[in-house]
Amino acid sequence: MMWLNRDIVSIGDFSVDEIMEIIDKANKMVQYASSGHPERPLSGKIVATLFYEPSTRTRLSFESAAMRMGARVLGFGSLEGSSVAKGETLSDTIRIVNSYSDAIVLRHPAEGAARLASEFADVPVINAGDGAGQHPTQALLDIFTVWKESGPVNGKSIGFVGDLKYGRTVHSLSKALSMFDVSLYFISPEELKIPKHIKKDIEKRVPVRETKNLEDVIEELDVLYVTRIQKERFPDIEEYKKVAGIYVIRPSLISRGKKNLIIMHPLPRVDEIPPEIDHLPQARYFKQASYGVPVRMAILDLILRGE
Amino acid sequence: MMWLNRDIVSIGDFSVDEIMEIIDKANKMVQYASSGHPERPLSGKIVATLFYEPSTRTRLSFESAAMRMGARVLGFGSLEGSSVAKGETLSDTIRIVNSYSDAIVLRHPAEGAARLASEFADVPVINAGDGAGQHPTQALLDIFTVWKESGPVNGKSIGFVGDLKYGRTVHSLSKALSMFDVSLYFISPEELKIPKHIKKDIEKRVPVRETKNLEDVIEELDVLYVTRIQKERFPDIEEYKKVAGIYVIRPSLISRGKKNLIIMHPLPRVDEIPPEIDHLPQARYFKQASYGVPVRMAILDLILRGE
Amino acid sequence: MMWLNRDIVSIGDFSVDEIMEIIDKANKMVQYASSGHPERPLSGKIVATLFYEPSTRTRLSFESAAMRMGARVLGFGSLEGSSVAKGETLSDTIRIVNSYSDAIVLRHPAEGAARLASEFADVPVINAGDGAGQHPTQALLDIFTVWKESGPVNGKSIGFVGDLKYGRTVHSLSKALSMFDVSLYFISPEELKIPKHIKKDIEKRVPVRETKNLEDVIEELDVLYVTRIQKERFPDIEEYKKVAGIYVIRPSLISRGKKNLIIMHPLPRVDEIPPEIDHLPQARYFKQASYGVPVRMAILDLILRGE
Repeated sequence: MMWLNRDIVSIGDFSVDEIMEIIDKANKMVQYASSGHPERPLSGKIVATLFYEPSTRTRLSFESAAMRMGARVLGFGSLEGSSVAKGETLSDTIRIVNSYSDAIVLRHPAEGAARLASEFADVPVINAGDGAGQHPTQALLDIFTVWKESGPVNGKSIGFVGDLKYGRTVHSLSKALSMFDVSLYFISPEELKIPKHIKKDIEKRVPVRETKNLEDVIEELDVLYVTRIQKERFPDIEEYKKVAGIYVIRPSLISRGKKNLIIMHPLPRVDEIPPEIDHLPQARYFKQASYGVPVRMAILDLILRGE
Repeated sequence: MMWLNRDIVSIGDFSVDEIMEIIDKANKMVQYASSGHPERPLSGKIVATLFYEPSTRTRLSFESAAMRMGARVLGFGSLEGSSVAKGETLSDTIRIVNSYSDAIVLRHPAEGAARLASEFADVPVINAGDGAGQHPTQALLDIFTVWKESGPVNGKSIGFVGDLKYGRTVHSLSKALSMFDVSLYFISPEELKIPKHIKKDIEKRVPVRETKNLEDVIEELDVLYVTRIQKERFPDIEEYKKVAGIYVIRPSLISRGKKNLIIMHPLPRVDEIPPEIDHLPQARYFKQASYGVPVRMAILDLILRGE
Repeated sequence: MMWLNRDIVSIGDFSVDEIMEIIDKANKMVQYASSGHPERPLSGKIVATLFYEPSTRTRLSFESAAMRMGARVLGFGSLEGSSVAKGETLSDTIRIVNSYSDAIVLRHPAEGAARLASEFADVPVINAGDGAGQHPTQALLDIFTVWKESGPVNGKSIGFVGDLKYGRTVHSLSKALSMFDVSLYFISPEELKIPKHIKKDIEKRVPVRETKNLEDVIEELDVLYVTRIQKERFPDIEEYKKVAGIYVIRPSLISRGKKNLIIMHPLPRVDEIPPEIDHLPQARYFKQASYGVPVRMAILDLILRGE
């Protein structure tokens, strides 16, 4: 496959074979993710991280990945410090940063920003989240986590719990997983159900089950993917508390699951996973976060060196 | 000439020979500006970028130049994150950062800040814009762009259009160009004419023509240097719209110019150059922005290694 | 002693022998502090600087030290640009950055934050100031300055002047110095006296003298450690002015001191040391600030390479 100079805009741009190629390469990078690649394959390269909205985890994870490969990093972590106040368009900023760097990692509040940027840049653009749109490297590191921590993706039963209506992560990850041979479970309150058009699309390819009760399906799951329920989604704080309380993950619930169940979360978490869960063998969300580095090392190497 | 440890405070500090030496060196750097200098001549050096007001383009351009030469970069991109809130004077901050770095790139809202800083630092200070004062590396990259994109500076007819009253860029660039054998055209509304003292100074050395009508002179120009007209300069928004509308660069106007006319702009642009111009062969403003890297690579090498 | 992977949380965690080992190593680093260690011993390592409140001097000093040793740096310089707004706990952020870096430098407004962080990180945590708590590398560079600029610490008479009540620096430094064979002088207005429990603790080990009058003791001092008196501590601005005015360091006062007296200050200073003092041979506060680099180079090398 052609990787050199390729933009990473949407997880939907990748075939299953391409996803598996990234996973395979990321797996080779794991050994270098905490010590640095001994050959510094990206030495001399500059990665620009343009974060039009703050996201510490994603930004630092990309920067760590770039540095572990020997590249250097420049950019900004928030709008303060950028020229946007002077009224510059995104396309002009991209055209300029294009001449300062070898790859652009873009986080932007507007859906479609990364696609637009990729049209104005000669260097490859990586979408690090564009509003309600895509965050493909998050989906890739999530799939890598399933593969690494739970074994082959095919055959897995994967449940998403929490806010499935607004969660960008759930939408693109469940779409990507539906390209594999999996069963998907969507567990949420009525108010936060997965959008119908996404569910319909997924149902064409894999079995889907929707429920309000995590208890009803916990025994069937190989992977429990928990997401945060945001207060702001509820007009009434009492309503929020009631709903949020139901989806807090308790050890007693986990003990009813499969022996090899793993718990994932895109983080940051608030109350939906209490600290007592952290010590259970099922908890893999910090491991998951750590996989951001090898997955992004693999992606940077693929698009900057083509292999 | 002695370059080692030299401060870059004002374009007025340089002779024509020195400017040509920088241009010559920058030209050699162009080939390394997008891939990095293979010898990493500034390896082990630290460049501090102290930006007391944000300027993404200038900061990232300096950081890219430093990294392309093998140097490392530390600093801040805006006041948030600096000690200024604690009441520290600029001279104290400079004396301290002096011991953390090998060169200081300073952006500051107060005119004269860079000169002051250069008196308190042992390491060389580069002025990256000090309020209404100077921005010498911008002038140098502009002259480099003329030279590279249009040929020898001597003999050129160069027109400045837009806000010539408040534009720091126009003031120092036109002064610098007047050391060469050029003709200068100042095209602006009555309200935004170039200050008399600057015009008088320039007229001592080169022919100057002043006009309100770009149409009257477009056929004579080799270089059209466009600047932004800022809304804030006009008490009446209707007045602004009338003036700004006149100086929008249209393809029909450009088609009347010389075959080899080039269009420059220090960026960011707003409405004065519409996107339809971007695709014309005359448009060189993104090229101009990209030359910030090789010009700054040359300057950093000259002052940090002396050659 | 075991240094590899050790957390640097409180100056109280170190024995006199360990402090002397750091001083000895820092002294060897001085020659590399402005040019970079030729062997780049920390090449391939990543140092994370997480500054939950801005402190330009401390952050840039750590970053310079890391870079001079060949390491790379990522992080944030202020809360803007961090995930804290999304409600993430410090312990979760630490667990994640733990997988992005080889050492974490933490500045946090809450006392005890660094100790907490060290419990959640596998990589070593360096406390770069935690509210009213500790700032151990500041104390270490202060002791290094005494040793380097004034000779062996044992036998010295060291006076602290200014705000001794709220100054974190004075508290931890005076405690650390009391492990040596020194005499300590606390010179302050009634309102800003050193807290009784600290004084009592110190008096167990070394002679202490407390006074309001710097004139009374200036002739006895080898080291005069000046601190800033903050306006905010006084309900009445007139009261502040009266007090602050008394403790301004004048050349006439300094001339009455020992020939080898040195003047230190943690910086930033405001009015307590006027610029006319800067040129006296006694003024060592900029030298002191510069020693932040070799001391932090030594610490990073000890905890990242164990030697």
